Amino acid sequence: MANKPSIPKGTRDFGPMEMAKRNYIFNTIKEVYAIYGFQQIETPALESLQTLMGKYGEEGDKLLFKILNSGDYFKGITDEDLLGRDTLKLQTRLAEKGLRYDLTVPFARYVVMHRNELQLPFKRYQIQPVWRADRPQKGRYREFYQCDADVVGSESLLNEVELMQIIDTVFVRFGIRIKIKINNRKILSGIAEVIGAQDKIVQITTAIDKLDKIGLEKVNAELIEDGIATNAVERLQPILRMSGTNEEKLETISHVLSESEMGLKGVKETRFILDTLRQIGLSNEIELDLTLARGLNYYTGAIFEVKALDVEIGSITGGGRYDNLTGIFGMPGLSGVGISFGADRIYDVLNVLKLFPKRNITNTQLLFVNFGWKETEYILPMVSKIRKAGVRTEVFPDETKMKKQMSYANAKQIPFVAIVGETEMKEGKLTLKDMMTGEQLSLTVDQLIQKVQV
Amino acid sequence: MANKPSIPKGTRDFGPMEMAKRNYIFNTIKEVYAIYGFQQIETPALESLQTLMGKYGEEGDKLLFKILNSGDYFKGITDEDLLGRDTLKLQTRLAEKGLRYDLTVPFARYVVMHRNELQLPFKRYQIQPVWRADRPQKGRYREFYQCDADVVGSESLLNEVELMQIIDTVFVRFGIRIKIKINNRKILSGIAEVIGAQDKIVQITTAIDKLDKIGLEKVNAELIEDGIATNAVERLQPILRMSGTNEEKLETISHVLSESEMGLKGVKETRFILDTLRQIGLSNEIELDLTLARGLNYYTGAIFEVKALDVEIGSITGGGRYDNLTGIFGMPGLSGVGISFGADRIYDVLNVLKLFPKRNITNTQLLFVNFGWKETEYILPMVSKIRKAGVRTEVFPDETKMKKQMSYANAKQIPFVAIVGETEMKEGKLTLKDMMTGEQLSLTVDQLIQKVQV
Repeated sequence: MANKPSIPKGTRDFGPMEMAKRNYIFNTIKEVYAIYGFQQIETPALESLQTLMGKYGEEGDKLLFKILNSGDYFKGITDEDLLGRDTLKLQTRLAEKGLRYDLTVPFARYVVMHRNELQLPFKRYQIQPVWRADRPQKGRYREFYQCDADVVGSESLLNEVELMQIIDTVFVRFGIRIKIKINNRKILSGIAEVIGAQDKIVQITTAIDKLDKIGLEKVNAELIEDGIATNAVERLQPILRMSGTNEEKLETISHVLSESEMGLKGVKETRFILDTLRQIGLSNEIELDLTLARGLNYYTGAIFEVKALDVEIGSITGGGRYDNLTGIFGMPGLSGVGISFGADRIYDVLNVLKLFPKRNITNTQLLFVNFGWKETEYILPMVSKIRKAGVRTEVFPDETKMKKQMSYANAKQIPFVAIVGETEMKEGKLTLKDMMTGEQLSLTVDQLIQKVQV
Repeated sequence: MANKPSIPKGTRDFGPMEMAKRNYIFNTIKEVYAIYGFQQIETPALESLQTLMGKYGEEGDKLLFKILNSGDYFKGITDEDLLGRDTLKLQTRLAEKGLRYDLTVPFARYVVMHRNELQLPFKRYQIQPVWRADRPQKGRYREFYQCDADVVGSESLLNEVELMQIIDTVFVRFGIRIKIKINNRKILSGIAEVIGAQDKIVQITTAIDKLDKIGLEKVNAELIEDGIATNAVERLQPILRMSGTNEEKLETISHVLSESEMGLKGVKETRFILDTLRQIGLSNEIELDLTLARGLNYYTGAIFEVKALDVEIGSITGGGRYDNLTGIFGMPGLSGVGISFGADRIYDVLNVLKLFPKRNITNTQLLFVNFGWKETEYILPMVSKIRKAGVRTEVFPDETKMKKQMSYANAKQIPFVAIVGETEMKEGKLTLKDMMTGEQLSLTVDQLIQKVQV
């Protein structure tokens, strides 16, 4: 058993410094969620496989971590079945529980199970790890946190507006400059409808996305290659060529979609959201972007995504409106809208841009050097008083070389060290050393508390 | 797939009210840990089974949740082995990962893996869920949080002293009256040594524990029945009969153990801890209790446990000194000492004694009633201003009956409701209703902020 220990691929330990940074991210997001009236819930890591299977597509089913049943897990499986080695078929016999794959399905399950206690609209946030048996690679983990907020049971677009305000506020607090991109599933459906290519939404958004890179002519050629009729591509031209402000784009789109009720509804929704946000005033830019096509199987209205302006990195936040959260669990579909902050990417952005606060607000502020029992006995009541005043204080527990104690303070980045030797005991004072400047002051306990807390 | 959803036995959902209470518990503990210079770490929920197996005894191995391998989990298992159905033997072939069973083994694994980055003594705390495939019963869950703090790499008894101060401070903050019980494994070993019954520690502590209930005579009879020699039971008499203060008890014990080096060391350690704590001054009582025998396989020095004085419930916090945290992973044993708060039981105690703070510090403070778009458009900039001032504010998103909106406020226990209709718009004021008193005031935005934040 004396093997060198390791942790499973795609999982991570978080040490004190990383935790301080991660807590800064989570606490900032939590505070903003709370300011907007969202309340925290938690669901268990373990869910029935019945709850999880079939909710994330065939690929998702494979990526679920499944818990081997306790006791005789072969019970009820025939010899024939065992020798058949059909791992896909047998897995739900060997395992009846799995690990949470995202926070959305557990949330839907929660809403259905607790529907009689819930007051609608229900505004909840949830910050918990999820697990996916994905192939680990740079920036992709098998265990990672999601930070979701959703409102269910309200179709009001005010919810979309507030979620955009939340995104804006969170990134202002982080000091990260962003652009919010917004789209609407109904506009995309309208376009597909109008040009008579209902099943080609993905091809259309991909084509628009390539405009800057390959130019209009090649995009048109690709669309035709994708099987879209020439006259349909023709009708798309105003949208492919459009530019200007969000309002100008919406104007163009509404002309093209004048015969699609669905499409016009999407335009109206988007206009409402953008107009209202303009009145309220956001610190960051919000841009209508028809290429945004996340969660097309899922979202039915607004779709959003956040890009960091000063770092090359994928989307750092996303979300959208869905119509049928709880239908999968047999409860008439509740409409909702939600966002999810990508904590790991935000961590990387804050690191690259050196935006983490200098002061670690959970780190020790003051270390008392240990010169031996006589001195320690003398300082302990002072230490109690200093801690009662809220100063995060340590006494070095062992009587060792001064050098070792000082290097402990340095390694932990403790800003102040208190020294109490014979002289200090005689004078009834403490020597406080500022580890940044090297300055030493002779102080009373009260003076020290004041100095350290500044 | 339209089955009524459920969650696995022994797991729980935590709704907004429960989360607010749980966060109160965790945040209080975190704050106190930080005041004493402990830093947070997190380890993954998934660990290699190699890390976990064999660390918790045979029973523990069974209670580990094991993750079915991805892909062809039968690979490498012969037909013969499959038909042998030896579930115990095959489980480590079918599963190579498991769920964290406690926070101690992952911490030991962490220390060994990160030993080159760590500055000793390392003071860490960790608050994360653990999983056990135990039979669920009242108060026992398959997924529950542990809240551990440990110092490793220091043998100084100052660490024990500070952990007792932490316990004292945490329960003072909770308002829970407690008694801390302290014992020392070396004293127990000394007793067993002196009476020549080294393997009878458990029987001796159990016997002492029964003194109050069945009396000295019956206890002596039981000890002899347990196979302890008559003259050994004779030698135990001063300890069985001892009473008085901690100091008086230690005096008695040191007489009985005068020939046991180990036993006297235990007395000396305990005396140091108790004397130092008396000098510093604790708010709660600490009592030497020889019947305390938790973690006998594990603890090597001080052992502690906390009892709530005003509620019948098991130990709500415990811990002790161990000598060999990392030996299991091939690193020369590091000594350490740790405590663990029982969050679920503390939750129950706070509930029973009605000690949870009245004010829910994460709940919405103010709800704006929705009378329609004209009014909503008018209030949105005010709402932004109020939120910027830090007031947790909601706007009811849908234009529905006043009654429904008010019952939403009641259900969420929102203390203030803001009403802005035509009159208020004309006057440029808001009507603020105090939901507790029913009082209504006509206020400016700034006045409202002041009023709500009080």
